Amino acid sequence: MKFLTLEQGQLGALIEDEGQQQVVDLTAAAKLFELEPLPMTLAEIVGWTDEQVAALWGLAQVALDKGVSCRAYSEVKVIAPIPQPRRNILCLGKNYLDHAKEVAEKMQASSDAPEHPIIFTKATTSVIGPGDDIPAHAELTRKLDYEAELALIIGKEGRDIPEEQALDHVFGYTAINDVSARDLQKDHVQWFRAKSLDGFAPMGPVVVHRSVMPEPKDIQVSCHINGEQRQCANLDQLIFDLPTIIATLSKGMTLLPGDIIATGTPAGVGMGFRPSKYLKSGDEVVVSVSGVGSLTNRVV
Amino acid sequence: MKFLTLEQGQLGALIEDEGQQQVVDLTAAAKLFELEPLPMTLAEIVGWTDEQVAALWGLAQVALDKGVSCRAYSEVKVIAPIPQPRRNILCLGKNYLDHAKEVAEKMQASSDAPEHPIIFTKATTSVIGPGDDIPAHAELTRKLDYEAELALIIGKEGRDIPEEQALDHVFGYTAINDVSARDLQKDHVQWFRAKSLDGFAPMGPVVVHRSVMPEPKDIQVSCHINGEQRQCANLDQLIFDLPTIIATLSKGMTLLPGDIIATGTPAGVGMGFRPSKYLKSGDEVVVSVSGVGSLTNRVV
Repeated sequence: MKFLTLEQGQLGALIEDEGQQQVVDLTAAAKLFELEPLPMTLAEIVGWTDEQVAALWGLAQVALDKGVSCRAYSEVKVIAPIPQPRRNILCLGKNYLDHAKEVAEKMQASSDAPEHPIIFTKATTSVIGPGDDIPAHAELTRKLDYEAELALIIGKEGRDIPEEQALDHVFGYTAINDVSARDLQKDHVQWFRAKSLDGFAPMGPVVVHRSVMPEPKDIQVSCHINGEQRQCANLDQLIFDLPTIIATLSKGMTLLPGDIIATGTPAGVGMGFRPSKYLKSGDEVVVSVSGVGSLTNRVV
Repeated sequence: MKFLTLEQGQLGALIEDEGQQQVVDLTAAAKLFELEPLPMTLAEIVGWTDEQVAALWGLAQVALDKGVSCRAYSEVKVIAPIPQPRRNILCLGKNYLDHAKEVAEKMQASSDAPEHPIIFTKATTSVIGPGDDIPAHAELTRKLDYEAELALIIGKEGRDIPEEQALDHVFGYTAINDVSARDLQKDHVQWFRAKSLDGFAPMGPVVVHRSVMPEPKDIQVSCHINGEQRQCANLDQLIFDLPTIIATLSKGMTLLPGDIIATGTPAGVGMGFRPSKYLKSGDEVVVSVSGVGSLTNRVV
């Protein structure tokens, strides 16, 4: 079950049909079949029960079978799954060991694995969708960098969530590019500003429901710049795994449906190379996550 | 012109009337007089023009004169002015020199004034109102600390705002207590988690419209614990003043109406004393800001 957001903000379903990728406009289909509750946006359904989500998927299948409210995936404009998050995106820092090592020297930091999860946030206004341009912000940074990440979207509110129940609080998964201005990151000490410029959070293209997401060992996170592979790792290489992230973040802090948590980036960011390989205008950045697909953006 | 939020979320006005403090329920008064647009919440009016705000204030005066929709301030329950912010609270770190010095040793940081503003965020779920309890989170921290701050609320959207126009983007001012768990702040490196536990952002009691706010040199920010003064400074002691904060934050990042910016805390936090004076259960914490009044909370 893969959901996405269409150009006008409508909720869409991405379905394989005889080898073709089709998108059903669920907002339109639900109106057509006079169903309640009417799903208007992806942000609204993240809090739905598994049964409601399954019923919604059934609707997508029916619409596809009847050939209503559907079009080829290649013909629709998809925007970020949650274009205006209800609050800042939560992000993990240095959550792959090889990445912690590669940044250590450049950022004058320890090369050891962090003892506790490092958590910062990105502004809601940094979100853009698949195909949108990443602004280079050349007047502010000369060290524009990429960070391919798996992001999870919280479905069920919770606080002090035990690790063994943590994944029950997840609605689904998507891909995110935690674009970063390394010079601002150093100058401002705390990372918020360097991570929050407009356009610094490409996200999508789809949200994969947790019921159909592969196991962590089978989830690969990668980044290609102009076709050259720069990052590639499996999710089982995370220092703090998904249950630990959710359990830690929710200790004393309520997680809300719609919260987005970016889980950290593997080794291979531009800063880590000698000489550095920062992004420049015209570069094509492709972040890929197993199950989610590819998120492509160009630096402008 | 002072605005506040009443228990059911209605917009209120706080008016001096012959030495008595009266609160007008503007939502009720506007309904009564059949006015449009109907102001429902404080979060809605932050984007209004000065003329609209002045008209709203006129309505409060009329209601008071007629004795409708008003009660004594002492008899109403006031909650946080914006109980559910549209995104995380933006916060300045080490923005008073004496505070930067007092934390330097304890946090193994530089005692110099920062060269660039240090910016982090607090979760929206940390917001509580005047009179609400600050949870001690004793299972998570043994170093619970207070930070009295002036906060400003953005009224007009903007990006790349020049310093000389910065204050035009402010709707008004309030007080905030940037409650912090110092042990978590050290453990997690980035400060988000240590600043974001539930109840860690007492805010209020009122929002003072910028047109009636005193000059920075006349704004005092103070904190008293159980009646003992711990912090006291004037706003002209800020390392980065209000126009600089707004100009810097908006460089490449769009500020939105309703954004809350906490401007940093003066010297005198619990961590700065020898021995430390951390908060304990039962402590009464009073944050005062000239014009805004006092924000009182008890640690439980």
